[in-house]
Amino acid sequence: MALAYDPLFITSDTISSMADISSPPQPMNLTQDELKRIAAYKAVEFVQSGMVLGLGTGSTAKHAVDRIGELLRQGKLENIIGIPTSKKTQEQALSLGIPLSDLDSHPVIDLSIDGADEVDPDLNLVKGRGGSLLREKMIEGASKKFVVIVDESKMVKHIGGSKLALPVEIVPFCWRFTAEKLRSLLEGYGCEANLRLGEKGKPFVTDNGNYIVDLNVENDMGDLGLVSDAILRLAGVVEHGMFLDMASTVIIAGDFGVNIKTKHI
Amino acid sequence: MALAYDPLFITSDTISSMADISSPPQPMNLTQDELKRIAAYKAVEFVQSGMVLGLGTGSTAKHAVDRIGELLRQGKLENIIGIPTSKKTQEQALSLGIPLSDLDSHPVIDLSIDGADEVDPDLNLVKGRGGSLLREKMIEGASKKFVVIVDESKMVKHIGGSKLALPVEIVPFCWRFTAEKLRSLLEGYGCEANLRLGEKGKPFVTDNGNYIVDLNVENDMGDLGLVSDAILRLAGVVEHGMFLDMASTVIIAGDFGVNIKTKHI
Repeated sequence: MALAYDPLFITSDTISSMADISSPPQPMNLTQDELKRIAAYKAVEFVQSGMVLGLGTGSTAKHAVDRIGELLRQGKLENIIGIPTSKKTQEQALSLGIPLSDLDSHPVIDLSIDGADEVDPDLNLVKGRGGSLLREKMIEGASKKFVVIVDESKMVKHIGGSKLALPVEIVPFCWRFTAEKLRSLLEGYGCEANLRLGEKGKPFVTDNGNYIVDLNVENDMGDLGLVSDAILRLAGVVEHGMFLDMASTVIIAGDFGVNIKTKHI
Repeated sequence: MALAYDPLFITSDTISSMADISSPPQPMNLTQDELKRIAAYKAVEFVQSGMVLGLGTGSTAKHAVDRIGELLRQGKLENIIGIPTSKKTQEQALSLGIPLSDLDSHPVIDLSIDGADEVDPDLNLVKGRGGSLLREKMIEGASKKFVVIVDESKMVKHIGGSKLALPVEIVPFCWRFTAEKLRSLLEGYGCEANLRLGEKGKPFVTDNGNYIVDLNVENDMGDLGLVSDAILRLAGVVEHGMFLDMASTVIIAGDFGVNIKTKHI
């Protein structure tokens, strides 16, 4: 796994030029988890000593947090302060000896690194299948740079394109009413709304004591800013999993190497 | 207090015509609580047997709930189902024998009656100084008719005009960060943001387990729809206390009688 420490670096631009080379690149046949680790390690190259870091949640972000802990132990990074996006990440970071703080003490974050469930061509994201979308959005929205790490299966033509769910955090009070309002709001795009269940078939409860409604949206919703505002206007909604215009860089690990997309070049 | 059962009825139109009468009307020198009761009893005249009713929260709404209970006992109303907007109202209604249900079972409500902390000339409201703004907004937003009952001290030229607070319900997680975001967002209107405190100086906690930040806004905020969307886009915000374009009727009790304003005449 030397590759993970020095991943092949291919930008969006070089990918198209490579198609002209007579011997095409060979796929590396890596597992999805290996791809996630490659993307995560690449992201950690953006980290510099002295930074306040937003630490993401999920199977891809976990690799990045592990790597930051490793570099701290090795003395290659110093004076890092981590802001965890979930209780789970907080526990992981504590076990690795990463010094932690919170948004109240550090309202401006230098860099956040986190995974995503979907990335569209404009680098809009869907996040929150792990259930911590609200804290992620608060912390990543307070970051000067937000580097997103994904394997190539997360790239979609439009939000909803993976046929997986767009999560919405709602208050438990009369959740059926709010779920039906959400379904009805997006009915024109072929929307189903389901309460997320956790252990023993009980409702999944977020770190903030709320429920999650997973929306499965069939069709392209068009202007996502309008959809976002309409969802947020529903009184029972706390937050949704669309992260619009927030990612500054997306690192995509695929079988042919790593592709880095940056916003506003 | 016969007046309370048969309040003097003056519309917006008749008030101005009364100014032409040679002997001007005499003020009735009623207490604020008497005015609240007059408005509340007037609102209950809109209630008909068989209705599903949203039951408001607060010192004015309490009179309306009392009156509904009284008319049920007297047999003058039948088959009423109440949807309480807070645990407090739920307890009051139960003690009066009003049959209760919730939004999940009754997603469409015939009529809601509730007080307000401010009413502007377009019948936009500020609510939530009692702390139950989110449930009120869900229930009153699901109502075919929403009758607001106030004493005349609640009428303002613009939202914020009473110099009392505009409440915003936020998640407890990193509340200082969210409070500062709110203050900063409305800084141009001369805004202060303070966490609402409850018993023993601890943060006040809403029925939904959240905190309240009270915004004191000095100046007219202009387009309230834009302000509303901007507040809702902050990730830590659950809901705010501006009820825009929701009231269908406002009943205002003053020393010279009752004034009824209706939206979209």
